[in-house]
Amino acid sequence: MTDHAVVFTPSGRRGRFAAGTSLLAAARALGADLDSVCGGRGICGRCQVAVQPGEHLKLGIASTAEHLTPLNAAEARLEARGRLVPGRRLGCQAGLCGDVVVDVPPEHQVHRQVVAKGVDARPIALDPVVTLHHVQVGEPDMHDPRSDAQRLREALAAEWGLEGLRLPLPVLAGLQAALRKGGFAVTVAVRQRRDIVAIWPGLVESVQGVAVDLGSTTIAAHLCDLSSGAVLASAGAMNPQIRLGEDLMSRVSYAMMNAGGAAELTQAARGALGALLAELAEKAGIAPERIVEVTLAGNPVMHHLVLGLDPVELGAAPFALAEDAPLDVPARELGLAIAPGAFVHLLPCIAGHVGADAAAMVLAEAPHRDDPVTLLVDVGTNAEIVLGSRQRLLACSSPTGPAFEGAQITAGQRAAPGAIERLRIDPATLEPRFKVIGCDAWSDEPGFDAQVTGICGSGIIEAVAQMHLAGILRHDGSLDGGLAERSPRVREEYRSFTYIIREDAPRIAITQHDVRAVQLAKAALHAGAKLLMRRFGIAAPDRIKLAGAFGGHIDPLHALVLGLIPDCPLEAISAVGNAAGHGARIALLNAAARTEIAEVVRRIEKVETAIEPDFQQEFVAAMALPHATDAYPNLARHVTLPPRRSAPRRRLR
Amino acid sequence: MTDHAVVFTPSGRRGRFAAGTSLLAAARALGADLDSVCGGRGICGRCQVAVQPGEHLKLGIASTAEHLTPLNAAEARLEARGRLVPGRRLGCQAGLCGDVVVDVPPEHQVHRQVVAKGVDARPIALDPVVTLHHVQVGEPDMHDPRSDAQRLREALAAEWGLEGLRLPLPVLAGLQAALRKGGFAVTVAVRQRRDIVAIWPGLVESVQGVAVDLGSTTIAAHLCDLSSGAVLASAGAMNPQIRLGEDLMSRVSYAMMNAGGAAELTQAARGALGALLAELAEKAGIAPERIVEVTLAGNPVMHHLVLGLDPVELGAAPFALAEDAPLDVPARELGLAIAPGAFVHLLPCIAGHVGADAAAMVLAEAPHRDDPVTLLVDVGTNAEIVLGSRQRLLACSSPTGPAFEGAQITAGQRAAPGAIERLRIDPATLEPRFKVIGCDAWSDEPGFDAQVTGICGSGIIEAVAQMHLAGILRHDGSLDGGLAERSPRVREEYRSFTYIIREDAPRIAITQHDVRAVQLAKAALHAGAKLLMRRFGIAAPDRIKLAGAFGGHIDPLHALVLGLIPDCPLEAISAVGNAAGHGARIALLNAAARTEIAEVVRRIEKVETAIEPDFQQEFVAAMALPHATDAYPNLARHVTLPPRRSAPRRRLR
Repeated sequence: MTDHAVVFTPSGRRGRFAAGTSLLAAARALGADLDSVCGGRGICGRCQVAVQPGEHLKLGIASTAEHLTPLNAAEARLEARGRLVPGRRLGCQAGLCGDVVVDVPPEHQVHRQVVAKGVDARPIALDPVVTLHHVQVGEPDMHDPRSDAQRLREALAAEWGLEGLRLPLPVLAGLQAALRKGGFAVTVAVRQRRDIVAIWPGLVESVQGVAVDLGSTTIAAHLCDLSSGAVLASAGAMNPQIRLGEDLMSRVSYAMMNAGGAAELTQAARGALGALLAELAEKAGIAPERIVEVTLAGNPVMHHLVLGLDPVELGAAPFALAEDAPLDVPARELGLAIAPGAFVHLLPCIAGHVGADAAAMVLAEAPHRDDPVTLLVDVGTNAEIVLGSRQRLLACSSPTGPAFEGAQITAGQRAAPGAIERLRIDPATLEPRFKVIGCDAWSDEPGFDAQVTGICGSGIIEAVAQMHLAGILRHDGSLDGGLAERSPRVREEYRSFTYIIREDAPRIAITQHDVRAVQLAKAALHAGAKLLMRRFGIAAPDRIKLAGAFGGHIDPLHALVLGLIPDCPLEAISAVGNAAGHGARIALLNAAARTEIAEVVRRIEKVETAIEPDFQQEFVAAMALPHATDAYPNLARHVTLPPRRSAPRRRLR
Repeated sequence: MTDHAVVFTPSGRRGRFAAGTSLLAAARALGADLDSVCGGRGICGRCQVAVQPGEHLKLGIASTAEHLTPLNAAEARLEARGRLVPGRRLGCQAGLCGDVVVDVPPEHQVHRQVVAKGVDARPIALDPVVTLHHVQVGEPDMHDPRSDAQRLREALAAEWGLEGLRLPLPVLAGLQAALRKGGFAVTVAVRQRRDIVAIWPGLVESVQGVAVDLGSTTIAAHLCDLSSGAVLASAGAMNPQIRLGEDLMSRVSYAMMNAGGAAELTQAARGALGALLAELAEKAGIAPERIVEVTLAGNPVMHHLVLGLDPVELGAAPFALAEDAPLDVPARELGLAIAPGAFVHLLPCIAGHVGADAAAMVLAEAPHRDDPVTLLVDVGTNAEIVLGSRQRLLACSSPTGPAFEGAQITAGQRAAPGAIERLRIDPATLEPRFKVIGCDAWSDEPGFDAQVTGICGSGIIEAVAQMHLAGILRHDGSLDGGLAERSPRVREEYRSFTYIIREDAPRIAITQHDVRAVQLAKAALHAGAKLLMRRFGIAAPDRIKLAGAFGGHIDPLHALVLGLIPDCPLEAISAVGNAAGHGARIALLNAAARTEIAEVVRRIEKVETAIEPDFQQEFVAAMALPHATDAYPNLARHVTLPPRRSAPRRRLR
């Protein structure tokens, strides 16, 4: 029997097959990446290929469209409906009758790269966790009393080589109706060739998944198409647990102090998650049942609460996690009404204070794949800090407290319209100018018409940094009261000094207490980073990435002026946005990434700041603001740091 | 280093081990069956052995108690508490210092035989599905942030060689509290070396399971100790689905005709099952959480309803089952509050009308292990019929209708106090005498003081059979009106004849209609058996076993007189009680039995009576009552069958 050569691009897989062999069969035999849902019935249109005509000298092939069997009825039908690109062929219908070189366009590959819209986000390679399989199931027969499930299994084995699949009860419960509605043709969603997660009548060509970043303050979620990787809808919500406790530790206390408190927190988180999934499905115009997978990243307390695990052990030393391994939990066990057999995948936790969110951040930024040493920081009430490179990775968390979120600051507020987010102080006059969220103009520009309501985290960082640069603060953080004579902005109040940003109600000022709170927060973060640097044996990281919603708003220069982060070339400091969310999306779209991050997390060296004697020392040292004689060579290239000045000793009262 | 010989009885396993090796370690190395829960800590007392002193010439061993290390503190402690039988040793504490022959008493073997209390029930070999493993888990440490689950996994791997166990969320949720309550020593219940089903603080030495026979009328359940096999408690309940439909088909109709009807039936079944489990735990004085496994047998409609599968397809041809394979379903998915990770194992279904109850019956009676050909019948509204031997097995069901349950019979009632269950008719006088449930005396004996309320299934069978033997019935089932002249017991009413058993209110009589109902029922059963016999190629079975509560009450002789079953030596007909329940108990206690029955069910030849042309023919033939010229040689040895007589042709009206 004659056989013909076929070469698939871009994979380069090649082989020889008997005349008449379909291109899909050839691709499968060669392991060339070519999609298919209907299993070769010519109805899904997912296996499109394009013949590359011409003399391919290197390959020794004279390729032409005539070397395939002519366009058939199935292809003509799809082409007429606009679902087969003219000039292309269906791999399952086109048979070999000569040598050909065929290209598989990216959208017809299963494993392809998806470039995210976000700024720094690295492209995601698709490696679907859930695949679709259209099968024609044998009809029941009085002469053969095998069950519908049995006949389904046989069809999946015969048509797709899928054997020993688990068929959970909630999926089984819909089987008979789906078979009869679909005339015994159904599409089966299979997870990792092991679990059946849904069965639909007829042909279903796409399914979706949702990546969730479950933060203590906000929950952010993206609904993605699992075969294209495209984000179809995004949504966010406040974490309703806030009404039971503002920050993590107060929620842990709530669980400890109230009978049923943990369950209440769990219900709140699951309820919000469920509502978010429903909102996403509606936004994207899909049925919630089409959501077949959810990935979830969150800090350890959120991770435990959404799972229904009591977080009480996380509230006190030794901060023992119930579980740190990556988990696959049936979505129905979390009360989520999506595909009946869908799973929620939780990324692994790193340590008692370094959660699945940090793991997701590592997955997104992949410091473990690079040679330069990266310092990766997610700033929150606990800063999660990762330092390392291909060589080794270290992680710790540091209790920054709520100052960076605007809490416990006199005029502080959350980042919302009306909040000062940028601020400059004229060193000569000590006069401030500022920018407010919701208004494009600066306060001294025409068109500034903002209602000022307070100052948010990034505003506070800039205010304290600018006060330092303007000489209002000494390097130990004390306000220089002597300046009260030069400017009405510096004023003595309640036996200490205050810098007034704005007099009109609501008055906005930075008090000595506020400066101390910022110092404590930045010292905690800096000391954590220093601890890891010392362990790693480096004096400075090669680059710094600031993650999280807040990280994206911090101005790197001001962060350096404040001493929030170690000295580093300004151009090597970047904000990477919601890295945890991006990591969750990678885990959603790429099965191999789950294995990768689980392995990376296992070898991360976990450092517990609470018991490191070095940490206290670094912490005390990091309280001071960088000054002219400090080792901040990179920062010194951009600003003139004030001289080293401490407050005069107070009289004993 | 010196080594010593050890021989274990009854297994006969022998080997040589270094001095000091514990008997438990030696037993494990040799694969000798010796129990242990605490893993060699000397606290569970499950590894007791007895030295067999003396010269064992055949084995070449001089065995003496002095060839073991002396009784140690752990053993003395257990002995003082009465938990170590004097003279015995703990296998984990006694070390070899000479040659010994040691006996493992039955109660310290994992795999032993349990003899059931029931009459014909075959002994059950123990092969536990769930095993207990006591482990000492490492305590959490700030220097080592591994989770509690991780440390548990490590302990299970190190101490018991158990790896890759699944730890479901509801079990994980209790882990941290159990560890802390038990001082980081816990007992882990592991199912088939794969799933963790429960974790308890400290040492737990026994767990229980429940075998359930979920009938359409009654639910029967036995709570068994999984390590001893003993039945600790039994309970039964009416199936509350009855209020939604008397028989199976009316329940299927209810599900079809009412929105949410199937869910309502499911809730009723699960609710009753849950209540029964709670009742059993209370009766046995155990916490419901100690129930770690449930096995369940039921007909296809019950099987589907308890799983939450809509039974609608079972209501009409081709009677397609949703699932027929054996299933392991998390108990929590059925709303059962037992051990958090417990499973419910459902035996496989054989066909659309031959359910998991029939499979359990086959497992209990094991016709597939014997050479004689057994006819196995479970009589209900559907008779489930199995015929065969080691060679081959056939199964069918036959629609007997509710007559045998006393339904649709003029004076019929369920088997309950007040119901006539035995009846004799004097052929000379046509006077009846009877026995009533709840009273030991016959109606013509002194001391008879029963309140008679009706007649139950077995009473109806005897009544019709006795009417036949007394000549009141012709062989075609018609009442001989001519006898009305001879006895006031035979009376014309509503244009047909009736036999009066009792005149006083409530009057109890057998009408022509009642006789016809019994004939239809017995013909269905007999025709089903005949169909299988013809397929098998035999004229008569070697033995007949009648299963089910009803089967136990049928008198074999009267069953033969009626032609309910094929002719067979009377002594080869037996009642086997609740065989389905016994099969569920075997599956509960013996893991291998589950594999066995699944394989047997796969090779059973399923016969669908509804489409067999032979069945209709057999059915019509089986309507008649056996008469003198019929081929009932075995029956003829015991009674004189009446001559062949048909009713005179009626006048056309």
